[in-house]
Amino acid sequence: MKYGIVMFPSKKLQDLANSYRKRYDPHYALVPPHITLKHVFESSDDEMNNISERLKNVAEKYKPIKLHISKVSSFQPVNNTIYFKIESTPELEQLHLDLYKDLPGGEPEYAFVPHVTIGQKLSNDEHSDIYGQLRLLGINHEEVVDRFHLLYQLENGSWTVYETYHLGKE
Amino acid sequence: MKYGIVMFPSKKLQDLANSYRKRYDPHYALVPPHITLKHVFESSDDEMNNISERLKNVAEKYKPIKLHISKVSSFQPVNNTIYFKIESTPELEQLHLDLYKDLPGGEPEYAFVPHVTIGQKLSNDEHSDIYGQLRLLGINHEEVVDRFHLLYQLENGSWTVYETYHLGKE
Repeated sequence: MKYGIVMFPSKKLQDLANSYRKRYDPHYALVPPHITLKHVFESSDDEMNNISERLKNVAEKYKPIKLHISKVSSFQPVNNTIYFKIESTPELEQLHLDLYKDLPGGEPEYAFVPHVTIGQKLSNDEHSDIYGQLRLLGINHEEVVDRFHLLYQLENGSWTVYETYHLGKE
Repeated sequence: MKYGIVMFPSKKLQDLANSYRKRYDPHYALVPPHITLKHVFESSDDEMNNISERLKNVAEKYKPIKLHISKVSSFQPVNNTIYFKIESTPELEQLHLDLYKDLPGGEPEYAFVPHVTIGQKLSNDEHSDIYGQLRLLGINHEEVVDRFHLLYQLENGSWTVYETYHLGKE
C-alpha cells in the first residue's frame, strides 16, 4: 500500500486553503489541506505495526509545534505549485528528518520546505496569473499543531487516515 | 464545529465501495467510504478534550470488531440510499449506544443499521434501476476493524480526521 505522513492545520486554515484549492488544485477532492512531513512511500501491511510503533516513539520525543505562515510562495521554476509557506523551525526540520530515519521510503528527494499547497498542475500562464494575485495576499497566521497522521492511498487516489500520533507524551 | 464518528473498513472494501460511489454518491469526494457510528453533532472546541478522553475510555472497553457484509440493501422507502449492509452484532450495537451516552448530540434519530453507503440522493427512477442491479451482487466479505475515528467537517462539506481510537487496550 502507499502511505504518507501529514499534519492537518486548524479548520480555519484548511477552510482558507480550500477556498483556493477548489479552483486551483486538482487534488482538492482527494485529501484535506495538509502539510506533508513524509512523501508517499510503499509498505506491506505486515510492516505497518512496526512502522506505527516507530511513529509513536518519534511523536513522543516532540512537543506541539508552532506553525507560522507569513506568505504565499511558489516552487517555480521546479514546478507550478503555489502554497502557503510555513516558516521552518528546528523542530519541524528535525521531525521531518526523523520520519525518514529507520522507515521505508528512502531519503528525502528535496530539501524540506514546509507548506500547504493551494494550487498545482497549473499551466505556465495560469501560474503566472494566479501567483501574481495570490502573492499579494496579506497572510499572517500562527497556530500550534499537536499531532500528525499516517494516511494510506485508495485506488482512486484519495487518502484515508490510518492512525493519529500525538506530539509529546499524554 | 461539526463532528462525526466513523469506522473506515479495509482498503479493499473502500475501493469496492468507491467503484459504486464514484457514479452513485454525491458525497464521494467529501469523505472516504465509512461506517457511521455516531451522526454529525455540534461541539465547541473547548469541549473537545473532554469528548476525546471519553471516546478513548469507550474504545478501551471493546475488542476489535468483526464486520460481516453479505448483501447490498436500501433504505427505501425512508430514503434512496443504497448500501453494503453490515450484519449487526451485540458489540457493534453496544458501541453505537456508548457513543451516544454522556456525549453531545442527543439520542440516535434512527435504529442503528450499520452500513457503508454506496449510493445516495438518487431519483426514484435511478434508485430502482441501480438497486435492481446492485442487489444481485454476490457480496460476502468479512474483516476485523480495530479502531474508529473522530472527524470534523470543513466549510466545503468535506471531513478531516481529528483523532484515532483503538478498540482494546494497547
